[in-house]
Amino acid sequence: MKLAAFLYPTGYHVAAWRHPDVQADAGVSFRHYVALAQTAERGKFDFIFLADSATMRGNDLPALSRTAIRYVAQFEPITLLSALSAVTSCIGLVASASTTYNEPYRVAREFASLDHISEGRAGWNVVTSQNEDEAHVFGLGAHPDHEERYLRAGEFVPIVKALWDSWEDDAFVRNKQTGVFFDPQKLHPVAFRGRFCVRGVLNLPRPPQGYPIIVQSGSSDMGKDLAAREADIVFTAQNNLEDAKAFYADMKERTLRLGRSPDDIFIMPGICPFVGRTKSQAEDKLQFLQSLIHPVVGLSLLSGQLGGVDLSKFSLDGPLPTLPETNAGRSRQHLLMEMADRENLTLRELCLRVAGARGHLQITGSPRDIVDEMFEWFDDKAADGFNVIPPFLPGGLEDFVDLVIPELQRRGFVRRNYEGRMLRENLGLPRPKHRHGCWHTGAYSDS
Amino acid sequence: MKLAAFLYPTGYHVAAWRHPDVQADAGVSFRHYVALAQTAERGKFDFIFLADSATMRGNDLPALSRTAIRYVAQFEPITLLSALSAVTSCIGLVASASTTYNEPYRVAREFASLDHISEGRAGWNVVTSQNEDEAHVFGLGAHPDHEERYLRAGEFVPIVKALWDSWEDDAFVRNKQTGVFFDPQKLHPVAFRGRFCVRGVLNLPRPPQGYPIIVQSGSSDMGKDLAAREADIVFTAQNNLEDAKAFYADMKERTLRLGRSPDDIFIMPGICPFVGRTKSQAEDKLQFLQSLIHPVVGLSLLSGQLGGVDLSKFSLDGPLPTLPETNAGRSRQHLLMEMADRENLTLRELCLRVAGARGHLQITGSPRDIVDEMFEWFDDKAADGFNVIPPFLPGGLEDFVDLVIPELQRRGFVRRNYEGRMLRENLGLPRPKHRHGCWHTGAYSDS
Repeated sequence: MKLAAFLYPTGYHVAAWRHPDVQADAGVSFRHYVALAQTAERGKFDFIFLADSATMRGNDLPALSRTAIRYVAQFEPITLLSALSAVTSCIGLVASASTTYNEPYRVAREFASLDHISEGRAGWNVVTSQNEDEAHVFGLGAHPDHEERYLRAGEFVPIVKALWDSWEDDAFVRNKQTGVFFDPQKLHPVAFRGRFCVRGVLNLPRPPQGYPIIVQSGSSDMGKDLAAREADIVFTAQNNLEDAKAFYADMKERTLRLGRSPDDIFIMPGICPFVGRTKSQAEDKLQFLQSLIHPVVGLSLLSGQLGGVDLSKFSLDGPLPTLPETNAGRSRQHLLMEMADRENLTLRELCLRVAGARGHLQITGSPRDIVDEMFEWFDDKAADGFNVIPPFLPGGLEDFVDLVIPELQRRGFVRRNYEGRMLRENLGLPRPKHRHGCWHTGAYSDS
Repeated sequence: MKLAAFLYPTGYHVAAWRHPDVQADAGVSFRHYVALAQTAERGKFDFIFLADSATMRGNDLPALSRTAIRYVAQFEPITLLSALSAVTSCIGLVASASTTYNEPYRVAREFASLDHISEGRAGWNVVTSQNEDEAHVFGLGAHPDHEERYLRAGEFVPIVKALWDSWEDDAFVRNKQTGVFFDPQKLHPVAFRGRFCVRGVLNLPRPPQGYPIIVQSGSSDMGKDLAAREADIVFTAQNNLEDAKAFYADMKERTLRLGRSPDDIFIMPGICPFVGRTKSQAEDKLQFLQSLIHPVVGLSLLSGQLGGVDLSKFSLDGPLPTLPETNAGRSRQHLLMEMADRENLTLRELCLRVAGARGHLQITGSPRDIVDEMFEWFDDKAADGFNVIPPFLPGGLEDFVDLVIPELQRRGFVRRNYEGRMLRENLGLPRPKHRHGCWHTGAYSDS
């Protein structure tokens, strides 16, 4: 069972920053992240995982000014992972980087550099920017639509891999006697002309892993095809077993159809675990966090799920009012209205329902409960492993490492020690062979 | 006297990688850089300094394949400095980043993140790209000319500073009781429309230093004016006292003319020291490195200084042939031809003359010789300090720290202990006040 630790600054729960045991300025506390990375390494996680957004998400200031998890004030992930590489030794280091407002050369260079610095522990989560505000900070008027973003991503990833193949593995001979530093025959400039035009050579040797690990997180058809072609790992939000099994089967089939082995790609849904020594202790942890949600924040989350309806004029302790139909997210609106009606929920209660795992599987229970559910998903071919998303930090991660990991180890589902130093070795993935020729445009002097 | 340590992978000398005590793969050895940074911190340097080029420099493969210092195979500097921040505690961390093929938002974000990670030790060396190959890897057909590059830089730096001022220092209240994470009144979105269009808010709190230190390295009129407007430090190549004094006076005067105090800007020429316990020991170190220069590399360097003349068909042991006049670098060509004639140098000897400090002041001698010359420059108002460029690493830096620093300390020219934890504190520069209003476009929801 593969395991990642998904590190939001204060934890995934929207009110985690208000928890008395949570450092409210975690997003810019390097010591906080050092402790998290070392705890995850102690738990023998395959890798830590950082999401990213180049700008803060949303412009609903009353709600935004009351949350710590919408990329308002937190480290840029490549700088953070580079720094963490110096204080860890075996755990993988995976960060999101967008293919929408970025250059393939820059991404290839940063992840290759991180892979060299960390001696083979880097991974790139390929995402497209969903946030229109990113267009404005990068000087573009219009945000490209979903299809265009994935067409860009589909060109972006192969260019990055070709840049990682700029040099053969043994290109740098560094022979002090003869004075030859590299063998020019083993240099393979990239020449690509399409949505991106890239002509040149990456100025770093081939990464220790050949290619850093590729993670892909999109769940649209185009996202799934991109993953089937290019990714080692798919990160996905699934909140019930049946949907997760269908997603898993679909991904493995797409991978096979595109000429790769289904074993070459791992499906890792997110899970948001509330861990207690007993189920009721775990429930208490959840309820305590729920009680910290500011009504404005809860309403903003619910409004988002209802397609942007303004709920501010209704009473929190009254029922969900009858809402006008919107074009956006009509099926989700019906689902929530039915649920509120069936369970006779107040507006406040409905807010709490949507505030928790936000699409990911939430498991609340004892270590045994949690391992049982993880194993069921694993055994039923719904998951090859999990991206564990602690609801609050560092406590939620410590609970998982101290209570759940020993149970997973006891039952033989996860490692007790790292197999190697590189992320690929620990994941059991082969090092990709150098591919040359396909991007080669002849002698360097011609290019 | 301010001191920086300029870390080329194997050292500044073109043949350093062939030295028996030098690690030939230093450019991608993180352990190598850890040792260097810790040695510089032991010597109480103000900061370490990394140059950068996004691509390797030059396409003369026979020479390029025999050198280790033309950005062929080395870490990307922001990832490297981030990692080094975790294994050092007081030394400043300064990297070059180009304003030519880059976005102000990205640079603002990376250096702000590094400043937070390192708790106030980041600095940005503002450069423009001289290397046309960078245009090709970033999808652009044509490399902008010198004037356009500096016009871009002149807009780029103020935008970066405005982005660092996106939030007032006390914007993040993080009040767990009230649930208010930040004060929306203390948010100041940037809106700039010119060569760059940037509209938005940096998603990091104001850096610990207010602004990371700004270094500027261009010596053209436009470069000097940019420095006088924006920089804390000017890094410059000067190889004789008279020119250095003139440059120093010019920079201080420009700074005054632009409304700043001349004391707000430090002039730091590069020096390339060969240190021995005696002068003859130092000379031996220089001669040994010179003996390692491959003729092809030496000829390539000389050819570059002569405006690109092909010298490969001439005998190395004969005189410099009479050369056709070129448009590029005619004065330099005359200078070298006169020197060869006057001193009766062979082509080989002339190559060695240009291969060493390449424009920077080279000092070869005992610690006392070196300190005497440094003090002369300092006392004569040619320098506020120096960017020390060890010719080979780690030995050249260790020599400086073990032999020259104690002499500098004995004579009271440099510190024995860091004054503080932040780079600004150690340099004695005030923390810039938050500037708001000038970039403010009204409520965030309008932008």
